[in-house]
Amino acid sequence: MLPDSFRFGVMEGKGNVKVREEKLPNLKDDEVLIKQEACNICTTDYQQWQGKREHQGYPMAGGHESSGIIIAKGEKVSNSLTVGDRVCILYDFCGDCDKCKKGEITSCRNIKQFGKNYSDKYYGIFGFANYFIRKSKSVVKISNELSASEAGFVEPLSSVLKGMRKLRINSGFDTVVVIGGGTMGLLNAAVAQAMGARVIVSERNPQKVKKIKQMKLELIDAGNEDPVEQVRKRTNGNGADIVIIAVGTSSANEQALEMIKNDEGKILLFAAGYPAPELNIDSNTIHYKQCELIGTYGSNLDDFNNAAKMLSEHRVNVSPLIEEKIPLTRIQEAFEKASTRGNYRISVLLQS
Amino acid sequence: MLPDSFRFGVMEGKGNVKVREEKLPNLKDDEVLIKQEACNICTTDYQQWQGKREHQGYPMAGGHESSGIIIAKGEKVSNSLTVGDRVCILYDFCGDCDKCKKGEITSCRNIKQFGKNYSDKYYGIFGFANYFIRKSKSVVKISNELSASEAGFVEPLSSVLKGMRKLRINSGFDTVVVIGGGTMGLLNAAVAQAMGARVIVSERNPQKVKKIKQMKLELIDAGNEDPVEQVRKRTNGNGADIVIIAVGTSSANEQALEMIKNDEGKILLFAAGYPAPELNIDSNTIHYKQCELIGTYGSNLDDFNNAAKMLSEHRVNVSPLIEEKIPLTRIQEAFEKASTRGNYRISVLLQS
Amino acid sequence: MLPDSFRFGVMEGKGNVKVREEKLPNLKDDEVLIKQEACNICTTDYQQWQGKREHQGYPMAGGHESSGIIIAKGEKVSNSLTVGDRVCILYDFCGDCDKCKKGEITSCRNIKQFGKNYSDKYYGIFGFANYFIRKSKSVVKISNELSASEAGFVEPLSSVLKGMRKLRINSGFDTVVVIGGGTMGLLNAAVAQAMGARVIVSERNPQKVKKIKQMKLELIDAGNEDPVEQVRKRTNGNGADIVIIAVGTSSANEQALEMIKNDEGKILLFAAGYPAPELNIDSNTIHYKQCELIGTYGSNLDDFNNAAKMLSEHRVNVSPLIEEKIPLTRIQEAFEKASTRGNYRISVLLQS
Amino acid sequence: MLPDSFRFGVMEGKGNVKVREEKLPNLKDDEVLIKQEACNICTTDYQQWQGKREHQGYPMAGGHESSGIIIAKGEKVSNSLTVGDRVCILYDFCGDCDKCKKGEITSCRNIKQFGKNYSDKYYGIFGFANYFIRKSKSVVKISNELSASEAGFVEPLSSVLKGMRKLRINSGFDTVVVIGGGTMGLLNAAVAQAMGARVIVSERNPQKVKKIKQMKLELIDAGNEDPVEQVRKRTNGNGADIVIIAVGTSSANEQALEMIKNDEGKILLFAAGYPAPELNIDSNTIHYKQCELIGTYGSNLDDFNNAAKMLSEHRVNVSPLIEEKIPLTRIQEAFEKASTRGNYRISVLLQS
Repeated sequence: MLPDSFRFGVMEGKGNVKVREEKLPNLKDDEVLIKQEACNICTTDYQQWQGKREHQGYPMAGGHESSGIIIAKGEKVSNSLTVGDRVCILYDFCGDCDKCKKGEITSCRNIKQFGKNYSDKYYGIFGFANYFIRKSKSVVKISNELSASEAGFVEPLSSVLKGMRKLRINSGFDTVVVIGGGTMGLLNAAVAQAMGARVIVSERNPQKVKKIKQMKLELIDAGNEDPVEQVRKRTNGNGADIVIIAVGTSSANEQALEMIKNDEGKILLFAAGYPAPELNIDSNTIHYKQCELIGTYGSNLDDFNNAAKMLSEHRVNVSPLIEEKIPLTRIQEAFEKASTRGNYRISVLLQS
Repeated sequence: MLPDSFRFGVMEGKGNVKVREEKLPNLKDDEVLIKQEACNICTTDYQQWQGKREHQGYPMAGGHESSGIIIAKGEKVSNSLTVGDRVCILYDFCGDCDKCKKGEITSCRNIKQFGKNYSDKYYGIFGFANYFIRKSKSVVKISNELSASEAGFVEPLSSVLKGMRKLRINSGFDTVVVIGGGTMGLLNAAVAQAMGARVIVSERNPQKVKKIKQMKLELIDAGNEDPVEQVRKRTNGNGADIVIIAVGTSSANEQALEMIKNDEGKILLFAAGYPAPELNIDSNTIHYKQCELIGTYGSNLDDFNNAAKMLSEHRVNVSPLIEEKIPLTRIQEAFEKASTRGNYRISVLLQS
Repeated sequence: MLPDSFRFGVMEGKGNVKVREEKLPNLKDDEVLIKQEACNICTTDYQQWQGKREHQGYPMAGGHESSGIIIAKGEKVSNSLTVGDRVCILYDFCGDCDKCKKGEITSCRNIKQFGKNYSDKYYGIFGFANYFIRKSKSVVKISNELSASEAGFVEPLSSVLKGMRKLRINSGFDTVVVIGGGTMGLLNAAVAQAMGARVIVSERNPQKVKKIKQMKLELIDAGNEDPVEQVRKRTNGNGADIVIIAVGTSSANEQALEMIKNDEGKILLFAAGYPAPELNIDSNTIHYKQCELIGTYGSNLDDFNNAAKMLSEHRVNVSPLIEEKIPLTRIQEAFEKASTRGNYRISVLLQS
Repeated sequence: MLPDSFRFGVMEGKGNVKVREEKLPNLKDDEVLIKQEACNICTTDYQQWQGKREHQGYPMAGGHESSGIIIAKGEKVSNSLTVGDRVCILYDFCGDCDKCKKGEITSCRNIKQFGKNYSDKYYGIFGFANYFIRKSKSVVKISNELSASEAGFVEPLSSVLKGMRKLRINSGFDTVVVIGGGTMGLLNAAVAQAMGARVIVSERNPQKVKKIKQMKLELIDAGNEDPVEQVRKRTNGNGADIVIIAVGTSSANEQALEMIKNDEGKILLFAAGYPAPELNIDSNTIHYKQCELIGTYGSNLDDFNNAAKMLSEHRVNVSPLIEEKIPLTRIQEAFEKASTRGNYRISVLLQS
């Protein structure tokens, strides 16, 4: 029997996340009812909880790294989606605007990623709900072999894939340095490696250093070594072909500019930072070094699809990036742990 | 006041196209009601009428090069589409399957391009209807400055744009030979030129030769000149960088293989032919000439969007490719003219 | 009879350029003797004359935009170069280092572009010589149909082509704004147009504004219009897909950042400026706007070759960029005119 | 003390390879004297020995997969090459023609790869010589950490890299099937894997099957499994994204066409075959399947450079592809073994 209500995590204000319950609406022709299984807590979520992004609005029915199983589908939903399929949720999008026509759904001109899209009461897209109804176009299928928490990585992975598209890695040749060994840094590292780059991760936090070693990634222990010097040394003095800045700080920007090779290097500005990190560079330097500073944010429909494919085919292994799984009933504790420096993804289990 | 029925052209059998009338269904939340203005007759259409593609099925409510004006919209249709907007129609697509997620809507796994998608009675997508209701996702906006018949070129232009993506023209440098000066040949020629290629069109039909001259395209008059010799001569003996085969015949294939440069040439198989044209080449030749044979068919959502953009910005001018405009009431005559050798697009005016 | 000495322009110090004469050495196996016909005066040259780049060293036998005719060749020079061929001169390069193996000859690790490569006495590569002996690998052939002064554009054009490679213009779709209508700005504009972009040039100097109109390029008259506002207005509010900064100033940088579209824009830092222009941007802006700042400098062997091909095939017309032709005997006057604000290339005729 | 003569292997006729001795000429300014250490026997070589390529001409001083140490250099050779450097030999090239300007040295218009380039008496480039003098531009540096026989792989690896450039592998996503597990097949496989593809090798020869297992590559044992069925099965019915045909036979071509995915697949014609393999495909099939048939042959200067970089950085391991090392004095035996079905590269040691 199908549920008629759903429970979900809501950030009600700074430091306060609760579980609430609402009625499920009727399933429409083009919708699927998803039994959501897990949702991982992203920085956007826990910084809202920490009060650092209050401009996003309360109450926030957040969570956007969620996966589950289709348990019912509307009449017009195609045969490509079946009851029993594991799916990952995407942001909803209008499908009409020029951005959506290009697949750039995170830039949709009509539906904002963290707006009140599903409810007049709540911001957010209800990732932390145990059941939810979504448009069938707003999910992608993923292998049942993965855990629900691993499947939750489709959204962050899609944003990494967009960055990689923009970087145009020279597979088999490039040496990529990732500054920052947090979840997004290591996800970038794992993908760059899967795409045939040599990858070096620079990090100073001892807990993260340990994780990097455990994942057998090449490490610069920035607490004990000079990252710029190490990059030069390990590349025969050439510098990195590519630097991915996965931590939003002025010092990371500065290091990146010193680490890249003398000509034709590329720097990906993957992470935002608050306050906005400085970038001390004049245009002559970019000109003469023939380098590229590349910004990336969001992802397109194909990136989401490819992220699901990449996980389903075990091209990257995200399981080391799951710090702990905590049931929905203890969601407040989950947010506390997610906010703890040095922790990787906390996954909220939605059926327990 | 909105219409409650619509009239539309139907191919009922070989050589027989009639206008029928049906009730319009209720407009759903995610749909738009379009006052269709013009629909151009494509080869797929007139060959069905000629009885050459009977396997596609009768009755066929064909036409897929159609444009019109939105006169009503469902409640959930986004602000990007407004009453009064000129739009071009696309094929419908499920949006759920892996192909649709990649935007490859003409390869949708669930909705066939010329299936019974809108009706149990009729094949086709009702391009020749004076009014029709469509999903809002299945249209793209286009400038009101263009005529309705010009706007109808979005679909064929999108297929040309897909071919160009696959060709990766070296803009500013490449010399592109187009074999065949019919509508699709000249559309390929116009686009390649707009993308910065030198373009030469080879054609033998005197009526088409005249059109090519009128469009001020560089011509090989294949009735009076040897195309292979001419290409060699006009390229200092090098041959063409790219040959686009826009007519499906064995002799066109043969010419293309002789016209391309000795190494690293690219041939685009743009046109199908019936019976299937032969391709006499062994794999050593491809290997040693380092050439590429590239197939293309259909288009993706972004190609449709780009086609609308290209036309709206007057990057290509399709008006010379419109042979004649004929009202819906005389659709049988329109098909006769469309089937006449040497004619370019016949545009059916749907409001008269 | 072949000459046994050559006359050439030498910058002896600030504001002082003279013609000197030296003996020609014996022609080696792998060398060609070139009767040089014209050499255009580049910024690097006249700023040396103005004393703004004294660090480059005196005496400077400058000039690097030179063309001529082969009048003798060494025994081992291949059949691809013949007496009578028109050629453009390139920088010399070692051919051994990793940069040269990649064709990146302007980054050669052993032969500096403006070093004392041909003489112990003089810096520079003797572009302003009436005869000179060069390695056969350091020339590219170009059509005899062009004037010698036009042929001299191969070097600056090659640097524009490198920038275009890095920009990856979306031909047929992109709108490119060029800030600065000097020689290099208009060369960028002409090439972008030849590659299928819509091009808009922004310039405030009335003399240059006149030239832009004469070349029938789309103009923003920055003395009378607000460039940022104009770009937004002329692109339906979207902004430019690409901005090429062809004048090295902080205000040009600032304008570029305001002119590009809101996401996925690209800015090419084509020009250096002295003092180094500021770039006021934080990394969050690059991240969220998903834009690219791309540096370019120099060119590779293929760019030189392509520049010769592009000119030979009349894909771009550089003749409007030649301000005046002045004989070698009046080279001091030529430098005065080259240094005059608003002037385009001054071409020194070497045989008169 | 430097040698004044050199010994080298010469194919004097079918089945007959001898060691001869000649005087070394004087070292010119732009040349290096190389103490050659190893040269691997390629198919071109042993098929000449077998009499299958007699059109190439006798006596053939073959061998083109050679490496050695610089023991002397001419006065004008740059600092990038030093006595003691390990280098790999390239084909010689004119440097003047349009092909060379593009770096496409194996297509040089003036110096044929297997012509009489170094001698009036002998075809070939003297790969099997213990000492040889070459232009400094015709070598690339490679790490001393590799064995001389491994370093010999630069030439075949460069040709694989050209193929990969043309294939544009979608790293991290594509599944690549290689048909044929000989030296070139496994080299393609190793590189595709290093570039982030999933790779499956299809082979029926038991000796080669064993090697593939030893290299831990995913195998289709074509003697016991149906390759087409296996590819479909292992890709969820989709077929391969890319098929590389590394054995020149009609049946390989046929399999490739059946193995690739239904749309947008790519087939690389890597291998030639004698007699020329058939390719049974009509142009409608290429059109509707939107597939690409891509030829590749030879390599450019950058490919050679990249091959040396790839080996030096241990991105691929070629040591399993060396079947046996045999001294120059036993070169006849080396050719016998190279001609033996199932064997990988036989490496001729030139200093013993």
